[in-house]
Amino acid sequence: MPPSGAPACAVCHETRAWRTGFNLQSGFLIEASSRSMASKTQVGFIGLGHMGNPMAKNLIKHGYPVIASDVFPESCKELQELGAQILDTPADVAGKADRIITMLPSSPNVIDVYTGPNGILKKVKKGSLLIDSSTIDPAVSKEMAVAAEKTGAVFMDAPVSGGVGAATSGKLTFMVGGAEEEFTAAKELLSCMGANVVYCGQVGTGQAAKICNNMLLAIGMIGTAETMNLGIRLGLDPKLLAKILNMSSGRCWSSDTYNPVPGVMEGVPSANNYQGGFGTTLMAKDLGLAQNSASNTKTAVPLGSLAHQIYRMMCARGYASKDFSSVFQFLREE
Amino acid sequence: MPPSGAPACAVCHETRAWRTGFNLQSGFLIEASSRSMASKTQVGFIGLGHMGNPMAKNLIKHGYPVIASDVFPESCKELQELGAQILDTPADVAGKADRIITMLPSSPNVIDVYTGPNGILKKVKKGSLLIDSSTIDPAVSKEMAVAAEKTGAVFMDAPVSGGVGAATSGKLTFMVGGAEEEFTAAKELLSCMGANVVYCGQVGTGQAAKICNNMLLAIGMIGTAETMNLGIRLGLDPKLLAKILNMSSGRCWSSDTYNPVPGVMEGVPSANNYQGGFGTTLMAKDLGLAQNSASNTKTAVPLGSLAHQIYRMMCARGYASKDFSSVFQFLREE
Amino acid sequence: MPPSGAPACAVCHETRAWRTGFNLQSGFLIEASSRSMASKTQVGFIGLGHMGNPMAKNLIKHGYPVIASDVFPESCKELQELGAQILDTPADVAGKADRIITMLPSSPNVIDVYTGPNGILKKVKKGSLLIDSSTIDPAVSKEMAVAAEKTGAVFMDAPVSGGVGAATSGKLTFMVGGAEEEFTAAKELLSCMGANVVYCGQVGTGQAAKICNNMLLAIGMIGTAETMNLGIRLGLDPKLLAKILNMSSGRCWSSDTYNPVPGVMEGVPSANNYQGGFGTTLMAKDLGLAQNSASNTKTAVPLGSLAHQIYRMMCARGYASKDFSSVFQFLREE
Amino acid sequence: MPPSGAPACAVCHETRAWRTGFNLQSGFLIEASSRSMASKTQVGFIGLGHMGNPMAKNLIKHGYPVIASDVFPESCKELQELGAQILDTPADVAGKADRIITMLPSSPNVIDVYTGPNGILKKVKKGSLLIDSSTIDPAVSKEMAVAAEKTGAVFMDAPVSGGVGAATSGKLTFMVGGAEEEFTAAKELLSCMGANVVYCGQVGTGQAAKICNNMLLAIGMIGTAETMNLGIRLGLDPKLLAKILNMSSGRCWSSDTYNPVPGVMEGVPSANNYQGGFGTTLMAKDLGLAQNSASNTKTAVPLGSLAHQIYRMMCARGYASKDFSSVFQFLREE
Repeated sequence: MPPSGAPACAVCHETRAWRTGFNLQSGFLIEASSRSMASKTQVGFIGLGHMGNPMAKNLIKHGYPVIASDVFPESCKELQELGAQILDTPADVAGKADRIITMLPSSPNVIDVYTGPNGILKKVKKGSLLIDSSTIDPAVSKEMAVAAEKTGAVFMDAPVSGGVGAATSGKLTFMVGGAEEEFTAAKELLSCMGANVVYCGQVGTGQAAKICNNMLLAIGMIGTAETMNLGIRLGLDPKLLAKILNMSSGRCWSSDTYNPVPGVMEGVPSANNYQGGFGTTLMAKDLGLAQNSASNTKTAVPLGSLAHQIYRMMCARGYASKDFSSVFQFLREE
Repeated sequence: MPPSGAPACAVCHETRAWRTGFNLQSGFLIEASSRSMASKTQVGFIGLGHMGNPMAKNLIKHGYPVIASDVFPESCKELQELGAQILDTPADVAGKADRIITMLPSSPNVIDVYTGPNGILKKVKKGSLLIDSSTIDPAVSKEMAVAAEKTGAVFMDAPVSGGVGAATSGKLTFMVGGAEEEFTAAKELLSCMGANVVYCGQVGTGQAAKICNNMLLAIGMIGTAETMNLGIRLGLDPKLLAKILNMSSGRCWSSDTYNPVPGVMEGVPSANNYQGGFGTTLMAKDLGLAQNSASNTKTAVPLGSLAHQIYRMMCARGYASKDFSSVFQFLREE
Repeated sequence: MPPSGAPACAVCHETRAWRTGFNLQSGFLIEASSRSMASKTQVGFIGLGHMGNPMAKNLIKHGYPVIASDVFPESCKELQELGAQILDTPADVAGKADRIITMLPSSPNVIDVYTGPNGILKKVKKGSLLIDSSTIDPAVSKEMAVAAEKTGAVFMDAPVSGGVGAATSGKLTFMVGGAEEEFTAAKELLSCMGANVVYCGQVGTGQAAKICNNMLLAIGMIGTAETMNLGIRLGLDPKLLAKILNMSSGRCWSSDTYNPVPGVMEGVPSANNYQGGFGTTLMAKDLGLAQNSASNTKTAVPLGSLAHQIYRMMCARGYASKDFSSVFQFLREE
Repeated sequence: MPPSGAPACAVCHETRAWRTGFNLQSGFLIEASSRSMASKTQVGFIGLGHMGNPMAKNLIKHGYPVIASDVFPESCKELQELGAQILDTPADVAGKADRIITMLPSSPNVIDVYTGPNGILKKVKKGSLLIDSSTIDPAVSKEMAVAAEKTGAVFMDAPVSGGVGAATSGKLTFMVGGAEEEFTAAKELLSCMGANVVYCGQVGTGQAAKICNNMLLAIGMIGTAETMNLGIRLGLDPKLLAKILNMSSGRCWSSDTYNPVPGVMEGVPSANNYQGGFGTTLMAKDLGLAQNSASNTKTAVPLGSLAHQIYRMMCARGYASKDFSSVFQFLREE
């Protein structure tokens, strides 16, 4: 239930509190919490790709002056027209703004943007708040936090669930790791771009939560695909089997909300030739991160590991851009 | 909601209708349906083991004269004292009763009890209803149905979910495969022993439904154990991680109802040193049946297959009699 | 080296002793042993398919009068023209011949041909020698042996390595299980059809040896394919990598004799677009038998099980009739 | 056979050429090649742990003046007494010696020693030859090579096979990646510490070759353990089964040279309660590197991945310090 008196956004005049919603790409279903508004000082934004661009726009829309940078200058044009100041390097941004959000493709980019020769930490101001929304290895998040701390800055990881659509509509989910006393400040900014902001614990736990959820999701999806396929071969009606599973201990999100068998449910990728949704390549990437984290922490994840390999095989066999529920199609006889 | 006027049991004067309940061992959660009473003619019962004994007792309790047989004569004493007639062989039982229930440990026993030299089919009466509640390979169920049909009898498979407790309290779940027009007659008898009777389709589909559910259950359980273990290693609080998963697309029965991590939930085996519940050996047996069915139907079930192997390894390493959620303990560092 | 004085075949005047050779389809490399000739009494032969037909012809070629039967009468024509007597049923054959060889596609066929209503055991003579060369579940071999023993006959399992080519040229390898005192008699017949006859132990161990070898073969092949693929992606030259592996502890038959990477070796299926050799479907069938045997004996075979699933996936994705080394192609990027 | 005229070592007067030998820990069996001697100028050595210490001693023994450094000063005492000069940091060493060998536990150490604030590259002389014998991710080797090239130095990866024993006796095997024109210079130094020096290709391929071999080794070992275990359960004598496999297509190094079943072979860890040999922890580490490389190159390695997980499970269940062939014991019934 929403607390009465939840503050409305100063720009959109909308009370953004305690909504719940299902996010197709991520499957995250999280209560939206209220947020408090603060002074609209400059916010730095590094990484204006498919996700970063609409995220930065939402910051502008909520009244924040944005100072941005990207390795591809052409990515910055649209934002510049909306009034953002564009600088050459992350270091330059850090020299001006003391709150910075980064949204980058992978671990090496994050390492470079923070600790490289033109990186944020070269010119970062003491007390700055650095929030990385990239999905990367939690171990790299921890390294960045240590490096930031040496300069007197604070680093938090805040990977998102939700795709370009959610980024555009400001309905991402953020899973946040870092010092708890900084969470309120982080949440103020992230709430401009997301409907849900969940605090997960120390630095790296935001990444950990995302990786863990997606690993279990992949296992549940492949397991559901195998089970439905086996049941059909054994003569069961797919809809009846789904119903029995969903009443029983076989129940999971992939069986009751995102069933991979065409004809069982409507409004899911399996009903649309596996178009849209969450691509097999992206799932394979996240499972690779889970695998790396498991190797680094010496954790046995046999099914998670096999799930990774299966999505890897699918990428090699033409399923790269289909929704990850297409594993049903991959496993069944041609 | 229960339909008004649901018929009460003639013996126990209890209205058994539309109850729902969670069955610890099986995890099946199925609406109980109403049942109609019929004439209390003799019922044959073959197989008076840990499960068969209390099942046959419930038939007697509901007013059915029982004619029983078991390879171990001492198994029959208790039932004999309750008024059951004990005969030497399944064939003898089939010569007297035209409704027979069998409850046997595995496929070879079923083959012998039906088609062996002293088997049911040697003396079965035309039009008899033969219900097998053993958990066996669906292919064997089909063979038995073909053999029964040649003698003019009808065979149905009706494996159960629920252990000795549910058998004693008459709260088993039956998944039934066979000719739809015989389902009402089967349900009348099975309702004396179970709270839920679900029609699944042609012969063998009862077995198929049970096998499929338990395969997906095993995958979800191991996946949950791996994920919780990985998250803990990465610094997440187990209760918080379970909460995040259960709000998200990682959600499954093993994460939200039967969590394998001690301290996350109460009233589940993980809270009681993995005692009680559904033993690892039994799960390994069911996964073996799933594997056989998959091999026979040439279905690829990579995660189901690996789940089978993991439970097999656990049996070899001292986990045979622990609840199957103890895979969390098996996978984590000693 | 052949011992001097090895007996020559009475028909082909060829000394068939102590040869060694590599068998492409099976990969078995076994010393051929000498054999002694015995009286040329009638030999029964059940199952005149692709393998049985040339095998029975070799018996005729070696001077044995053959009495044959097959469910498909047309399969018998060719043999009949060569002088074989054709009878309607296995029982009829057993009524006339006291040495019988069976060569059938799978376990159910074997069960039927031995114990069915027109089966061998219905009319078998006391003291008959029954040799089954089908590749089936060892548990079924044991059942057949028990059933045969009740009639006073002796059953042995003798599955073959080598395909139609080896069957035609009489160069099969037989792995024989059964009473050791009967081995000499069995070997006399089998030597007419094969170059190698290996005694493995009690009934079922012939099947066990074949199943075990092929399971390890499949694991080694997939492992080699993965390793070569990974090495190539990491920048190693395939020939150099194969050389390094073959000098090292990674060495196996699939890396040094049957390398799956096109261009590394000549004269193997990978050099010929994976045509010929040992088909993926057949490997999947053998791995299914290995899996069943493992399930029945409660043995953990995690890699064997995953190998089975991978070949099953390949069958579903269009690799059914390619050589099993095509797993290299299946795993690499399209 | 050794080519006549192979140059003898100037110090030990031993002709080190064309010997072959089996290396217990690594299983590498590689021809030793001849080497040419060069001037005995100073050699830097960073990392004086269990492996680095005896390796550096062998350099001294062959007449090279050694300048060493280690993060733990006490590790340097022994070498100092042998006449080595000890400096505070890798940078200091690089300021003096233009040939440097590094032997470090893992990727982060390598990154720090080369590119950290006191790293080699801070003071490295133009034209220096930097050889890293650590076993790390090939991607990190490539990064180091790029960083070295910017300073005008040459980086090569040269991971070893062989444990402390081989390091002490100078019988390691080196797999070398890097510019081919630098191989002769590298080999001169490495030959003082190893019996075999193999050129693999561009930078990173030394690591790749080691990782690939060990991945296939792990797969073959687990496969052999499963197969032997299954065969034994099916009634085969272990020695006979090993013999049959080794004559056949199931043959591999783990079955014919390092059989994991006690009683089958002598002189291997399985004959000595799995003591000595190559520890499960080390195998798990190498499989983790293989897994990372596979994830980074998007290569599907399903069996390699499962092998990794099995060794990870073994580490968690008390097998960490046993030889990796103890997987036979892990998989069989207690």
